[in-house]
Amino acid sequence: MGNTFGHMFRTTTWGESHGGSIGVVIDGCPPGLELSENDIQPELDRRRPGQSKIASPRKETDTVHIHSGLFEGKTTGTPICMMVMNTDARPEAYSEMSKKFRPSHADFTYTMKYGIRNWQGGGRASARETIGRVAAGAVAKKFLAQRFGIDILAYVRQIHKIIVEIDPEQVNREIVESNIARCPEPNKADEMISVIERVRSEGNSVGGVIECLTRGAPAGLGEPVFDKLEADLAKAMLSLPATKGFEIGSGFSGVTMTGAEHNDPFRSKNGRVYTESNFSGGVQGGISNGQPIFFRVAFKPVATIMREQKTVDTDLRNTTITAKGRHDPCVVPRAVPIVEAMTALVLADHALRWKAQCG
Amino acid sequence: MGNTFGHMFRTTTWGESHGGSIGVVIDGCPPGLELSENDIQPELDRRRPGQSKIASPRKETDTVHIHSGLFEGKTTGTPICMMVMNTDARPEAYSEMSKKFRPSHADFTYTMKYGIRNWQGGGRASARETIGRVAAGAVAKKFLAQRFGIDILAYVRQIHKIIVEIDPEQVNREIVESNIARCPEPNKADEMISVIERVRSEGNSVGGVIECLTRGAPAGLGEPVFDKLEADLAKAMLSLPATKGFEIGSGFSGVTMTGAEHNDPFRSKNGRVYTESNFSGGVQGGISNGQPIFFRVAFKPVATIMREQKTVDTDLRNTTITAKGRHDPCVVPRAVPIVEAMTALVLADHALRWKAQCG
Amino acid sequence: MGNTFGHMFRTTTWGESHGGSIGVVIDGCPPGLELSENDIQPELDRRRPGQSKIASPRKETDTVHIHSGLFEGKTTGTPICMMVMNTDARPEAYSEMSKKFRPSHADFTYTMKYGIRNWQGGGRASARETIGRVAAGAVAKKFLAQRFGIDILAYVRQIHKIIVEIDPEQVNREIVESNIARCPEPNKADEMISVIERVRSEGNSVGGVIECLTRGAPAGLGEPVFDKLEADLAKAMLSLPATKGFEIGSGFSGVTMTGAEHNDPFRSKNGRVYTESNFSGGVQGGISNGQPIFFRVAFKPVATIMREQKTVDTDLRNTTITAKGRHDPCVVPRAVPIVEAMTALVLADHALRWKAQCG
Amino acid sequence: MGNTFGHMFRTTTWGESHGGSIGVVIDGCPPGLELSENDIQPELDRRRPGQSKIASPRKETDTVHIHSGLFEGKTTGTPICMMVMNTDARPEAYSEMSKKFRPSHADFTYTMKYGIRNWQGGGRASARETIGRVAAGAVAKKFLAQRFGIDILAYVRQIHKIIVEIDPEQVNREIVESNIARCPEPNKADEMISVIERVRSEGNSVGGVIECLTRGAPAGLGEPVFDKLEADLAKAMLSLPATKGFEIGSGFSGVTMTGAEHNDPFRSKNGRVYTESNFSGGVQGGISNGQPIFFRVAFKPVATIMREQKTVDTDLRNTTITAKGRHDPCVVPRAVPIVEAMTALVLADHALRWKAQCG
Repeated sequence: MGNTFGHMFRTTTWGESHGGSIGVVIDGCPPGLELSENDIQPELDRRRPGQSKIASPRKETDTVHIHSGLFEGKTTGTPICMMVMNTDARPEAYSEMSKKFRPSHADFTYTMKYGIRNWQGGGRASARETIGRVAAGAVAKKFLAQRFGIDILAYVRQIHKIIVEIDPEQVNREIVESNIARCPEPNKADEMISVIERVRSEGNSVGGVIECLTRGAPAGLGEPVFDKLEADLAKAMLSLPATKGFEIGSGFSGVTMTGAEHNDPFRSKNGRVYTESNFSGGVQGGISNGQPIFFRVAFKPVATIMREQKTVDTDLRNTTITAKGRHDPCVVPRAVPIVEAMTALVLADHALRWKAQCG
Repeated sequence: MGNTFGHMFRTTTWGESHGGSIGVVIDGCPPGLELSENDIQPELDRRRPGQSKIASPRKETDTVHIHSGLFEGKTTGTPICMMVMNTDARPEAYSEMSKKFRPSHADFTYTMKYGIRNWQGGGRASARETIGRVAAGAVAKKFLAQRFGIDILAYVRQIHKIIVEIDPEQVNREIVESNIARCPEPNKADEMISVIERVRSEGNSVGGVIECLTRGAPAGLGEPVFDKLEADLAKAMLSLPATKGFEIGSGFSGVTMTGAEHNDPFRSKNGRVYTESNFSGGVQGGISNGQPIFFRVAFKPVATIMREQKTVDTDLRNTTITAKGRHDPCVVPRAVPIVEAMTALVLADHALRWKAQCG
Repeated sequence: MGNTFGHMFRTTTWGESHGGSIGVVIDGCPPGLELSENDIQPELDRRRPGQSKIASPRKETDTVHIHSGLFEGKTTGTPICMMVMNTDARPEAYSEMSKKFRPSHADFTYTMKYGIRNWQGGGRASARETIGRVAAGAVAKKFLAQRFGIDILAYVRQIHKIIVEIDPEQVNREIVESNIARCPEPNKADEMISVIERVRSEGNSVGGVIECLTRGAPAGLGEPVFDKLEADLAKAMLSLPATKGFEIGSGFSGVTMTGAEHNDPFRSKNGRVYTESNFSGGVQGGISNGQPIFFRVAFKPVATIMREQKTVDTDLRNTTITAKGRHDPCVVPRAVPIVEAMTALVLADHALRWKAQCG
Repeated sequence: MGNTFGHMFRTTTWGESHGGSIGVVIDGCPPGLELSENDIQPELDRRRPGQSKIASPRKETDTVHIHSGLFEGKTTGTPICMMVMNTDARPEAYSEMSKKFRPSHADFTYTMKYGIRNWQGGGRASARETIGRVAAGAVAKKFLAQRFGIDILAYVRQIHKIIVEIDPEQVNREIVESNIARCPEPNKADEMISVIERVRSEGNSVGGVIECLTRGAPAGLGEPVFDKLEADLAKAMLSLPATKGFEIGSGFSGVTMTGAEHNDPFRSKNGRVYTESNFSGGVQGGISNGQPIFFRVAFKPVATIMREQKTVDTDLRNTTITAKGRHDPCVVPRAVPIVEAMTALVLADHALRWKAQCG
């Protein structure tokens, strides 16, 4: 259970790290949208391993094929199935995992839940599962851009203790993609890259924070009371591997403000209403207010480290484990397109729900 | 849309601040559970206005009646409907709201979405809507306690800039309920109360952080990949009014740790596996690992303040507004039972899903 | 589980025959629809007991109150809760039922499933449960009529062995409501009434067939592949108490035709496409084609008869039971508004889904 | 929308007649079930074209591959993806269809709904779509047999005007599969085959009725009130291409009985309760009662006939069309495994729901 996301724009994923394929079916994408693999592949390329010196060297081209749902280059309103075959699987690198639970991974919990676990590369709990999300998100992004003029942009805001403050008026995709850290401040990006390289050399890992900015969303997206826009965004983000926190607008730091400081005054100019500040993060009462929507996601340091760690084996005896294989010392730069993809899935879903009820 | 929560333990709520009633239907509660209004009312009493000098003086007894789903004192497996009639409604206090949008409230977004808005007391966006959640949560809590031995305890961890660190081994319900701030450190509670009283006297408001601790949950609850336990908890919390952030385990501060520091080593003792630290917050790979589950929720300062604020009216002209009526200067102490309720709804849902697939 | 119907226009019901109330919440009704109890009560009056000499004499006014979702006479897009209090409950009439399972009722299966059973008046399995459906259906009907020009009309086509053939071009609500059998052929209606009165005098019961006709539905409603329009209609009808069959268009008799006879030729006239025959029943490939949609529903004879019948008791010993109380010898005339209501719920749901994807 | 079926045992399908692949993802299949392609392929072989002289000669081996969800031969609780590549597609046979709507097919309604239509072989509306259902049904069947001892058997009861009465005590899979008509009475089967061959030689087509019998289902499956077992079965059957009717137990003929004739008396023998008759069809109040569950499904004559027919073209001008290509004169024998598959999907879903609430 739990492998489908969304109510009207529905994404169902399948696949394990070392299984035959990783894939996704989108049900509910409106008809008439021009679409081809060329819309999907660039997003997968931003996600795939081996893309830079700070990413895992696992060699996967992650080439996507669309199996259904298109006719003469357009969506038909029927399910869009997209698939990536696994090619560079090395199950032998994981043989120790068959007998031991890696700390802070899903090995133990899957075993406790299901009584069986695909230990090759983490199985379903592998971050390769996010391939399906990124492919679906690429479709959602195109739909949102073409039909609603919505643009979604994420970037790295923090790696370990290096933090940047980003001006949402200035940031753009070009500057984000100008460096392998995906940090829109090139100087800070260099520092981040240095940190990542240092922890890798120490067999260690670090985490970080991604900020995501949505511009052009109309007022009116989001459903009271349980399916508030920020609620679905929070779920989307916490459903990603390695995430530990979500905050929208002022977030946790808003707690230290008073109401008089925090409230966003409405102003009207040329018939258009806006807010003078945006501590709300573009959402009020669970519904977008037309201002930029922005939120932050915390990623913990990668659990796989090249050091001996205490753990237990499948017979529940105390032992130690030392990771092998090809791993990321920091997943945050590669997670940027994933955060964008999940944001797009949430917004596409709410855009369709808005059309149904209020369109 | 969006007024139902959960997949197997399903909660549907209705009602506005000043409508006839606020209520809830639970669909999916297993049969045979002893239940009466006596299980529900105490939780509503913890939530209701007028309970202390730092809460809104609105006089509502919030008396609950169970309309269906019971027979001879036990649940029958059919829908449980619970209802509270609104009694102390004063729509006249809100007349200015009919023409103006209160800053950082849902007035503007509801109008933009629906083209119509119940402006009396905030309508559906009023915090009174959480009555249904608390009633349903009381049922879920009892179910979890009796069938799984699960205990859920929330408390105030921060008000404005006053923060307490809580030892999860020591905290209990008695100490939480020993003061009106619901802070398990009485000294800090006094400081918190002082802050709240001061901002009230200034016509201002403050926010805070609630921490929630679940003990006794077995390993195995949570569904990969979209319905991870922390994902559903995050959604539940961000669906509450005034919340701006969610973090589980190490949360945002985990970002500044390395993997070697952050990983939770597994140990085995007398055949039971535990972790030496719990930066994971009791969930790994989206599934509970048997350790205490804990997370934090950020609440912004209350949007209603007794000061003149800039805003626009329904004709989109610039104007000002000054709140009237009876309001909380800080909702956080009253939100403690609400956070517990939503946690219970998430866990009850996942407990049933676990039974279906793995039981 | 299973007390919610629909995906976008969602109806959740609660209540037992002798519980406090019977009610319903609609989630997803679009905003801006004028609505009051005056739209609901007439439909409940068509359903209620005591309405004619061939119905159960149970005295229930079934007065509905709307508890939420309206503001100044219009829907607001938030949940619409409607409720009817139970007044003429006589649990003592059912005391024998507490110890014995009535044949072809739900007593036995509820006990086997839940281990507990509300035996007063059939509990949740009572036909009183349909009150919520009829109330919700009245809202759906108004929505469909006002926003799409869709009209839904059901009538009695068969009682026991008395059958009428109805010309869909001629039938109208006035003639259906002109007699208590709700049969649009008054002569046949008299025969039907005679049959019902005869079986009542014999302590027996009969069933019948209702036909439902939807006019004005545009082409395009219905979702491939599992949520075909006829699939959702079939589910809706078989979810009603006492139904045993559903057929659309040619139905079971279409089996004896050849393809050359059965196919509906398309013709075009003044730019509008229609079919020369309508064996499809207005739906092709699961999607409405703009022709009238019509289907039939089979209702079995009422299970409650005033005769001694063989059964077992709750200790699983063989025994006999003889019904007491006030019952319908034939539910079919009273089921006409219920069939219309469920049809309206299906169409409203699909109308919203159509808007989301193709609107 | 509408390409997912089930609440706990969830089946999502994709694919068109002439697209890259036809496939299915099952989400919710419990872990630990032994499974391989050998469990799936035989069911697909019963469904595939070219299997006999009365089926379409289209040459498809319909070879299935499992892409995910297994580890060392067992299900892991994660999504099971199964896929069949399309091989014998001949789009050129359909070129006339690109400009004209085939009568009683989905060509017109898809165009009206989506504004775009994959006209090659019927696209998504092709019966090839049922491949995914049969594959998923094979998994559900194995799950039901191994965990609950449930056996599902369907067979042809009627072709055109040739009808057989089947004794549910005697019928078995061997006799059903002993002839290409899948009729458990060999003499009648020969007549059926003759009829099918005759209409084919005439360029015509016929329909029929399939009866489905489920034995071994425990009492307790099915959910009041909307998700009654017969309601979900009716939906499942009416979601199949070419179906026009569903009836359970006495069905439409039960209408001509009285309550005294129709009620199924309960009897107890050796502590086990059964009914002396089974006009209920094994379901009472929406919940299985432990008796065999049986129902019938009406299939219309195949819409594709080798004769000139009146229709309109995509410019809405009157014209004629004559089918080309390789088609079935009667789909009913090939639909037998499809009916079984959908029945299995419904029962697996309800078995899991039962476990969650009452297990």
